[in-house]
Amino acid sequence: MSYQYNIKKSNYANRGMSLEDDINLTNEYYKVNNIALIYKKPTPIKISKVDYSNSKITEAYFASPSTLDYNGIYKGKYIEFDAKETQSKTSFALSNIHKHQLEHIKKVLYHQGIAFLIVRFINLNKNYLIPAKVLIEFIENNQRKSIPITFFEENTYNIDIKYIPRLDYIKIIDKLEV
Amino acid sequence: MSYQYNIKKSNYANRGMSLEDDINLTNEYYKVNNIALIYKKPTPIKISKVDYSNSKITEAYFASPSTLDYNGIYKGKYIEFDAKETQSKTSFALSNIHKHQLEHIKKVLYHQGIAFLIVRFINLNKNYLIPAKVLIEFIENNQRKSIPITFFEENTYNIDIKYIPRLDYIKIIDKLEV
Repeated sequence: MSYQYNIKKSNYANRGMSLEDDINLTNEYYKVNNIALIYKKPTPIKISKVDYSNSKITEAYFASPSTLDYNGIYKGKYIEFDAKETQSKTSFALSNIHKHQLEHIKKVLYHQGIAFLIVRFINLNKNYLIPAKVLIEFIENNQRKSIPITFFEENTYNIDIKYIPRLDYIKIIDKLEV
Repeated sequence: MSYQYNIKKSNYANRGMSLEDDINLTNEYYKVNNIALIYKKPTPIKISKVDYSNSKITEAYFASPSTLDYNGIYKGKYIEFDAKETQSKTSFALSNIHKHQLEHIKKVLYHQGIAFLIVRFINLNKNYLIPAKVLIEFIENNQRKSIPITFFEENTYNIDIKYIPRLDYIKIIDKLEV
């Protein structure tokens, strides 16, 4: 049975803006106002069959990304980040970050790029920006399988939702040591 | 009628390495040797129908990109470029560059990123790196619909194909004024 993709889209609308929607709107604001140029990478798709008579893809599958979802440029610097949502009120499970994504984050830091995650605790109405360096230090110095909310409160940057831009994460970049 | 996507792939093999293949191999070399981190963006695809019972995409179409195909990081700097092949022995048609791509290139320069095209003249066995600034100056100061080969010879950077890395474009970046 086949469903239209936009069925899924309208579900997002019903339950309010997703983190992805908020970030896309924010990036659009940054672009229009010449603040930064940040794009969501297209979802990688493995194409199996193409009907060349009308350039229609008739069989394809979603592939898992080995990098982070968003990248771009801010003040000449390379930026890359991912957006993660959790239903938990107490912690963010590290299983949300794929092993190859973590390797990738380390490479971005090696090349002097700026990397981070934006984590939304949906049921707490809270959004945090956790710099890659802080994330990696946590993982390497803990046996825990999740990052507790208290760690976010004490060691990361809170971002409040505003009317416009929705999620003004870029100003935090100016504060980061890189 | 549906063809397998890999039929197209094997055609590339038959007629030798495509520019895209050369760049992908070069980027892999840069990655493994910690020189730079450059990725080809997934081709944007507009998904029309998904069979959620097995996460299979059953109808989708190729969308035209509004940015350039490759981006990444080199020495902390944001890099973005596109690869273009031409059969012509005399010039490179500007119709190869979409209007929205040109607008995008200007935005990358505004944000102090490094942008360029790698142009392959297939039948001349020649590859040139043309910096965005040089490209835009040409377009804005000429009525021509194509860039003659002599312009490439005199105003851009020649890149010779080597065994490894195939197309060592990154060392040219060090010479660019940005």
